[in-house]
Amino acid sequence: MEEEDSLRSLLSDFSKIEGLKLLVHGGGRSATKVAAQLGIESVMVNGRRVTDAETLKVVTMVYAGLVNKTIVARLQALDINALGLTGADLNLIRSEKRPVNEVDYGFVGDVKAVNADLIADLINKEVVPVLAPLTHDKQGNMLNTNADTIAGETAKALASHFDVSLIYCFEKKGVLRNENDDDSVIAEITPAIYQEYVEQGVIQGGMIPKLDNAFEALHAGVKEVIITQASELGKSSGTKVIIS
Amino acid sequence: MEEEDSLRSLLSDFSKIEGLKLLVHGGGRSATKVAAQLGIESVMVNGRRVTDAETLKVVTMVYAGLVNKTIVARLQALDINALGLTGADLNLIRSEKRPVNEVDYGFVGDVKAVNADLIADLINKEVVPVLAPLTHDKQGNMLNTNADTIAGETAKALASHFDVSLIYCFEKKGVLRNENDDDSVIAEITPAIYQEYVEQGVIQGGMIPKLDNAFEALHAGVKEVIITQASELGKSSGTKVIIS
Repeated sequence: MEEEDSLRSLLSDFSKIEGLKLLVHGGGRSATKVAAQLGIESVMVNGRRVTDAETLKVVTMVYAGLVNKTIVARLQALDINALGLTGADLNLIRSEKRPVNEVDYGFVGDVKAVNADLIADLINKEVVPVLAPLTHDKQGNMLNTNADTIAGETAKALASHFDVSLIYCFEKKGVLRNENDDDSVIAEITPAIYQEYVEQGVIQGGMIPKLDNAFEALHAGVKEVIITQASELGKSSGTKVIIS
Repeated sequence: MEEEDSLRSLLSDFSKIEGLKLLVHGGGRSATKVAAQLGIESVMVNGRRVTDAETLKVVTMVYAGLVNKTIVARLQALDINALGLTGADLNLIRSEKRPVNEVDYGFVGDVKAVNADLIADLINKEVVPVLAPLTHDKQGNMLNTNADTIAGETAKALASHFDVSLIYCFEKKGVLRNENDDDSVIAEITPAIYQEYVEQGVIQGGMIPKLDNAFEALHAGVKEVIITQASELGKSSGTKVIIS
């Protein structure tokens, strides 16, 4: 999403997807860049951004402002009726500040409620919601929430309204059997295969929470979860996660 | 809007206004501050920001991100169903890049179309739109548009749907007879009084475009225009602009 050429091509592919849809975006790289320009160090723990008060301002600017509105304007030019949203808008996604255990993540929100009826109403009117990875606590504070989490929670909440396909786009072609071989994509992952690969160390690191989220979404009624490369959006490639 | 105490009090006053409503905000002071922190100089001509590509990124971050979402989250905490919007969202306000005459304002948009039906639909559902001073050209570009202009154009467009009161909040108690005397508020301004005061030099500077906008809005069907201090919102004070 954060480089001109890939953004253009991704949004073009997205605009061609048939049926009702919404888009969830991140913006971590831009946030890190803007933070650095403002003299704010980005601290990551377990792949998540520690969000102090100054960092919260930066991610609110970058995610809800720069990245969200760039995407919305581009989609409007493609005749997609995009509407940029955070969890605060229309009280769509309420979260609670993460309790401090071993790590104090600061102003990070764990999702508590998704207003699926409202999102479904918008989607049914062929509005295409563009969700920034920000929520609110309904007490006046924005909170930083991981984009994968927003996507997963929204997909689960919408599963009672629609047959939901949840597609995670990232930089690799899918879940890889060998992380050094970009073509070693695992076509299908079942819970049994997942367990086996984790035990063997084939699947590790950041892919584990992603797949945990995927299985959780499927168990909550999401029809299919696909993990694929952004440039392959709309094609039948990547890794399909299935529970039966 | 840009200081904690006055923001809190303004949003509280705003939340108590009876009837259907929307809010248009600015954010110039924050934009200037963030731009300075990023090493970008703010260039103003005739009170308007010259918006080069880097400045457009800053105002998109500050207006649509930081300021807009801070307001939305605060209003949600006051049980106002706020929805933050730019002109790009839902294609609400389309503009065209200002032609270069004596001054090249850069990525500044002159409003061409306001989708009043859509805004009216939202308002009738008791959604409270919170409009950032940004529009788009429907060709993929965000554009910077003055908040007073957004307010005036939106009020005019909504005049066929509602009895619209347009309230401009600023730092003075109203239009002043003597700029050094904060209590010399002119209670009512008609076109005749306006002409007289402009000729006498009593009304000058930035107040002239504000009043021109006010009269234009009234001629386009807006019921009343009030120019008042932010802290007086909801009270019957300030300057009332009337055409009959």
